[in-house]
This record gives sequence, structure tokens and C-alpha cells, in this order.
Amino acid sequence: MSDRLLVVGGDAAGMSAAAEARRADPDRAITVLERGEDVAYAACGIPYWISGDVADIDDLVAHDAAYFRDRRRIDVRLDAEARAVDPDARTVTLADGEVLGYGALVMATGARALRPEVPGVSLPGVLTVRDLADARRLDALLRSRAAGGRALLVGGGAIGVELAEALLARGIEVDLVELLPRAVPALAAEPGELVAAEMARAGVSIRTGAGLERIDAAGERLAATVAGARSEYDLVVLGTGVAPNAELAASAGCELGERGAIAVDRRGRTSVAGIWAAGDCATAHHRVLERPVWIPLATTANAQGRVAGRDAAGAGGRFAGVLGSWVSKFGEVAFGATGIDVDAAREAGFAPRAVVRDGRGRSGYMPGAGRVRVRLVWDEPTGRLLGGQIAGAGAVSSRLHVVSTAISAGMTIRELAECDFGYAPPVTPLRDPVELAAAAAIGDAP
Amino acid sequence: MSDRLLVVGGDAAGMSAAAEARRADPDRAITVLERGEDVAYAACGIPYWISGDVADIDDLVAHDAAYFRDRRRIDVRLDAEARAVDPDARTVTLADGEVLGYGALVMATGARALRPEVPGVSLPGVLTVRDLADARRLDALLRSRAAGGRALLVGGGAIGVELAEALLARGIEVDLVELLPRAVPALAAEPGELVAAEMARAGVSIRTGAGLERIDAAGERLAATVAGARSEYDLVVLGTGVAPNAELAASAGCELGERGAIAVDRRGRTSVAGIWAAGDCATAHHRVLERPVWIPLATTANAQGRVAGRDAAGAGGRFAGVLGSWVSKFGEVAFGATGIDVDAAREAGFAPRAVVRDGRGRSGYMPGAGRVRVRLVWDEPTGRLLGGQIAGAGAVSSRLHVVSTAISAGMTIRELAECDFGYAPPVTPLRDPVELAAAAAIGDAP
Repeated sequence: MSDRLLVVGGDAAGMSAAAEARRADPDRAITVLERGEDVAYAACGIPYWISGDVADIDDLVAHDAAYFRDRRRIDVRLDAEARAVDPDARTVTLADGEVLGYGALVMATGARALRPEVPGVSLPGVLTVRDLADARRLDALLRSRAAGGRALLVGGGAIGVELAEALLARGIEVDLVELLPRAVPALAAEPGELVAAEMARAGVSIRTGAGLERIDAAGERLAATVAGARSEYDLVVLGTGVAPNAELAASAGCELGERGAIAVDRRGRTSVAGIWAAGDCATAHHRVLERPVWIPLATTANAQGRVAGRDAAGAGGRFAGVLGSWVSKFGEVAFGATGIDVDAAREAGFAPRAVVRDGRGRSGYMPGAGRVRVRLVWDEPTGRLLGGQIAGAGAVSSRLHVVSTAISAGMTIRELAECDFGYAPPVTPLRDPVELAAAAAIGDAP
Repeated sequence: MSDRLLVVGGDAAGMSAAAEARRADPDRAITVLERGEDVAYAACGIPYWISGDVADIDDLVAHDAAYFRDRRRIDVRLDAEARAVDPDARTVTLADGEVLGYGALVMATGARALRPEVPGVSLPGVLTVRDLADARRLDALLRSRAAGGRALLVGGGAIGVELAEALLARGIEVDLVELLPRAVPALAAEPGELVAAEMARAGVSIRTGAGLERIDAAGERLAATVAGARSEYDLVVLGTGVAPNAELAASAGCELGERGAIAVDRRGRTSVAGIWAAGDCATAHHRVLERPVWIPLATTANAQGRVAGRDAAGAGGRFAGVLGSWVSKFGEVAFGATGIDVDAAREAGFAPRAVVRDGRGRSGYMPGAGRVRVRLVWDEPTGRLLGGQIAGAGAVSSRLHVVSTAISAGMTIRELAECDFGYAPPVTPLRDPVELAAAAAIGDAP
């Protein structure tokens, strides 16, 4: 039997796993099979290449295949698609018929964009944006058109919001349609309305509670029907969710878990001996819910990849778990969430309460002191902090890190309110917005 | 005996105490004696009024005396200096001879700037900057001179660094002299050098390891002798430390503690029945050292004031304690610290280790992704996080809040490394600089 550590998939989880396995074992044969042309790229950076903020798409690639081959002695194979796994023989068969033996197999097959089941979603000009190939297609489409144009973005997730900003920067008019009642459904109403207002101010036309019904060709353009109304667009981008690429693992006998993702334990092991999984294709342990969840995020992929790579290399590993922490931005408003909100908390058996409080990113008398809206969720009987959402101007992401840290530490809302934070008028106010929200929750704020 | 709750001192601690006492007891008579003209002002904002960023000095006043009188029914008396306390009779005698009875007395007398014991430190044009009266004097002096001029700042504390930036903005050349070997002695070498480099780039001439020896009048100007060399200046600002205003409390029999500050317990009570103290005049419980310390900061004053006010009003209180967290900024470099560094840790019986790691404020491929240097200190045998220092560009203050939160929660360096932080290229990188530093400490970073 080969001792090779074989990784299927060459983005965040796969390359983290391979690199970490190399760190753990300088001598092991390590092979990565990537079915596309790109490895170790920052998919989350795509909107900023589309917008022009990032000049070169290669800047989104942390390290290319040659780097991993030459500097890490990792055998990275591009255009190499794994088609079948024999977990008893410990072999993987590639699309071209080659059979590779493995001692340990790490599935890092990622997730794919879903297209809603409505007529016309596969017409040319209807795009999803997951990887660099998608990004190149979008860019080519934008370049092929005369200046200006109009785009329909379907779905108010991070990709919809971030591409809205990017397309505006390219001179495209943007309509955003979201089936749910709020423009950014991942946020509760109060923080979400700051984002929607910023988008509207920038000229994004937002329709909520309205579904895409069909897309038809209309000459060179597309005609999209949303809630009965037909409008013409130069392109339609679907941000309507993703699904785990778990088929290969399933065919190898790996149990699937939440939302059809590959079920893994805290070490990244699947139910099949010799097979690990990590990243968007796999479940992850949730720190608050204390059960597996499927929340595909680049940060989780990176961290899980490292744990799985280390464990698969025989060096042991244990994934601390996720809080589903995410951040995004539109214009001057950054926003995001960590932990769970009241509905999920109630479902998990907590007795949640929520507080919303507006603070300032720096002292109010300083020029440019922006509003920072903080929502915190805690368990009433124990005081335990369960989640937080923030939107506004002023170090929103790092303030969410504070909430994540507090949740991870099992802090109560009172303990968060009593933290000792530094203060300097031009960078952070006397009472930080997070502290102030926590203090308001316990009645310790004016 | 009067039931009056009497507060001596009307800035951060005093007005917080009075306002909190009013929240706790809507009916109690509450009087604040302020010997100056100003209450509830942001002393930390003074450099930004001097620089011109804040247009009106009144903007630094959160609420004026009239607000507290009319809206909070707090009897605020300006130009009212408490001269003597009779703790048995429970009376305070004012400078004008008036005697006020009290049921509870809160000492919030603050701290005063120290002048080094060298010849000439009391000459006109040699200033300290603690309160708004000082700020007005400095501004008047700047206005009285022709454009330009040259200032000597003595001491590389926050006031020295922040005034350096403010004076440059006013067209003044700035020399900074610091007795200790580093320009910003409150920071360890690695983060501190980023600050010193930013100051030097902006044109501040820095001398370290050099003491002010004397100041002489030189016509309209001042001649300062530093390490044997004499130079002429238009003004000299002394940022050479502060001392607690504890004399009134001491004369009332209150025990003094660390550095001569008024010793208080976690409820803010002094050793004398009926007398509380809070803010820059008082000690505070340190969360890591688990003993009283004297670290005068506006944040501490505000928080201690609230606790003491509530407890003095009979509503109970308990101060969670400090980490000595502070933040400052020069140009594009923000910096600060929380918790303790290796020397203090060793002295306290820990076996400290430190790690320093440079990260980026956002994804490296995004324009304007600045360097963020993180130093973390932890206890080797237990892994417990003890302190952190950060300097750089990119949400430094909020990233310090993360470290503060982790220390307060008793997290280990590994637990900090394993936190789940959100990521979005334009606002925060895949691996946060704090996470990366913690990961480096446990060998989990490339």
C-alpha cells in the first residue's frame, strides 16, 4: 500500500491540509489533485478584482502550483479530477484512468453554486461566481459589452452584496432581488437595515420578498421576470446558495451529515478509515450548538484543512470548532455576525434575549466618527453570550472578533460589559460599541 | 446627618459616580464640587482640539454643568474647592468656608502633572497638559506666536506622542526627548519601533536616553539643555508623569496604597467609613496581578466612578478590575497595550514567554493593507495569556480589545489561536494578526 498522502481539491482546505502535512512530515509523498487550473486562491477576493481594486487576478493566488511543487515538495496536479475511490484498496482513479494509491486521503472538494430551478438559469450571461474561472468569465462578459449596462443580482448573501459594489464600480447599474423579506437575510433587521440603506444610497435597486421566476433571451440581453415583472439585463448573477461536493466521498462510503456535507469528527476523520475531509465539503463542530453544522467559509476551510492535514500525516489534531463568523462590506458599511441569533438559540434550548445598541467607531466629537450598530444575543438564565451581529463604520470586523472571542471563552454578557478596553479619541471611543451594547443588556448604560 | 451624596471632582470618575448614583436613587440629594471651570470633559481629546481636528473645545465636553443640574438634578458647583473633610461629623469644608454635610462622599480628585526637578521648569512657556485650562493656555501660547516655531516635548508617553502630532499640524517643529532608551517606553522594542519610525518620518526629532537638565529664559524663547546640549524653543511641554491627588483623602484618614493613590476595595470604598474613591486618585484591582495597582486612565475612571457611585448610593457595586489597557495614535500608526509584559509577569511569579508577529490589517493583495505588529505574552507552564501590545495600521485598538477580552476570560494562547474570526479581504485578512501571533506562539503558523 502506498504511503502517499493524497488530497483531492486544491483550494483553501486542500492546500492547507497539504502544507500542514508537509510541516508535520518532511518526508512523506504528498499529492494534490485539482480538477481546475488554480490552487490556493482567495475566492473571497474575486469582487475586488472585478471592481478593479485588485489589479491582477494572479494577486488573488497566495501561492501557485509551482511554489508548492518546488518549495514544499508537494506534487500538485492541475486538470486532475478524481473520479472514484476504492477505500479498501486505498486507491483513487482519475478521469484519465490513472490509479493512485494512498495511505491517507483528504477530501477537500469544496462546494458548488446552486442554480434555482427556474426556466432560463443556464442561458449565456447567467453566471455563478465561486472560483477564478467564474471570475474570468464574468470579467470577459463585462469587457465584451459597451460601457454601462445593467445587472440583476439574485440573492442578498455576501457574494450578492460584494458583487453589487464591484459592478457599480464598473459602471453597471445593479438590481438586487432577495426572496426573503430582508435585503441581507443573514443579518437581523436592525443591523441589516444599515447595509440596505448604504446599498440604496449607492444606487442599488433592492427588491425583497420577491423571487426570480424565469429568464428569457432578449436579443443580446436577458429578460428576467421577478415577482411578475419583466426587466432586461446585460447579465444575471446567481447568489442563491451552495451545496457541498460530497458525491465522491459518498461513493467511497463516507457518511454524510448536515445538509449533505461529509460528516467528520473533530480530527477531520470521515466514517471511512483512511479518509479525512475538510472545508466546504465537510461538516464542522459548532462551539455553541455543540453539534456538527455545515457553514462553508474560507476561514473554516483553512483551519479545518490544517487540522485534517496534520492528523492525516499522523501528527494528531483537534479542531476547536466554528462560530460561523463572517464579515462583509458594502461602501462604508462593514457588517457580519458570529455565533447564533435568537431563533437558532431557541431551537437549541436556550432562552435567548437580544439587545441592539448604536455606538460610535471613535469618539463622537472626532471627524468621521461613524455609527456602529451592535446586536448581542445571550441566554437569559445563565447570562452566557451566544451571538453577535455588527454593522456600521469603524473596525466592525475586529469588533466582531471581540464578540467571537467572548463567545469562545464562554463569557457572560456581564463579563463582556466589564472588559477593560483601551480608548483614544481618534480610533476608539471611551466606551466601545460592543461594551456599550453589553452594558445596555445588563442595564449598565445610560 | 445629611443624606447628601457628595462628590469631590467633576471629571470622568466624579461625574460618572454622580450620574450613576442618580440612576440608582432618583431622590437623593447629589452635589459635585469641581474646583475648576469644566466638568465631564474628554481630556484625551485635547491633542485633537490643539491639532484643529476638533473645531470647538466645547465639543470635548460631554455634558456641561447646566445639563447635570437641569436634566439629572445633580447640584454641580464650579470653582468649588473642597479643603477639609471631617469623617466623623461627615462634613466637607470648602475653600470659601462653607460647610457641607454628607451621607456618602466620593473622592474623584484625579491626578496632577508632575514637573521634573530641574531648574526653570516653572518658567512661562513651560507647560503641562492635563485639563481644559491647560489646553486653553497651550492654544493661547501657540496663537500668540508668529507662524511656525519649535517645541520641546519631554517624555514619550501618550501625551507626548499625541501632542507631537498636534503641534506638527499647527506648523510647529517638534523635538521629543525621552529619558529611557526607547521613544515610547510603554511599549516593548518591536511594536515601539514602528511608532518611532512613524514619528521620525513625520519630522519629529527624537532623542532617547537623554534627560532634560535645565530650562533658561532666552529672550522671548526658552533654552532647554538636554544631555548637555542647549537648544532654543518657543515652548516646552512636560509629559513626565502624574501623581494622584490624594491629600484631601489622606487628611481624612483614608489609607493610601500603590504609588500614593487612595486605597479602595472592589466596591470603591476607602478605609474610612462613608468615603469612596474612584478614578485617577485611587488604586484599582488588576485582573492578572490580582492586587491593587495605580494606572490612571480615563476608561478606568469612568468604570470605577460608576461602581463607586452606585455603591455609595446604596445599590451595591463591584469593580471587575483593570488590565491597564490603553491606545494611542501617531499618523497612520495606532498602538497600545493590555495586560502585562514579561518583566511584570516575571515579577508576579509567572514564567512568561513573548512572541512578536507581523500581520496585515486586511488581505495583503488589497490596496492599503497596512502592517500590524502583534506582541503577545503568555505564561509558559499554563499557557495563560497575560498581555499584548499592538502597533500598526488597521483596527489596532479593536484588535487590542480582542486580546483584553481573551485575557479577561482567562484564555490560553492556544485558545486565542483557535478563535473563529470572520474574514473579508477589504477589512480583515483570512488569518487575523492576533490569531496569527497566537498561532505562531504555539507553532501553528508558517
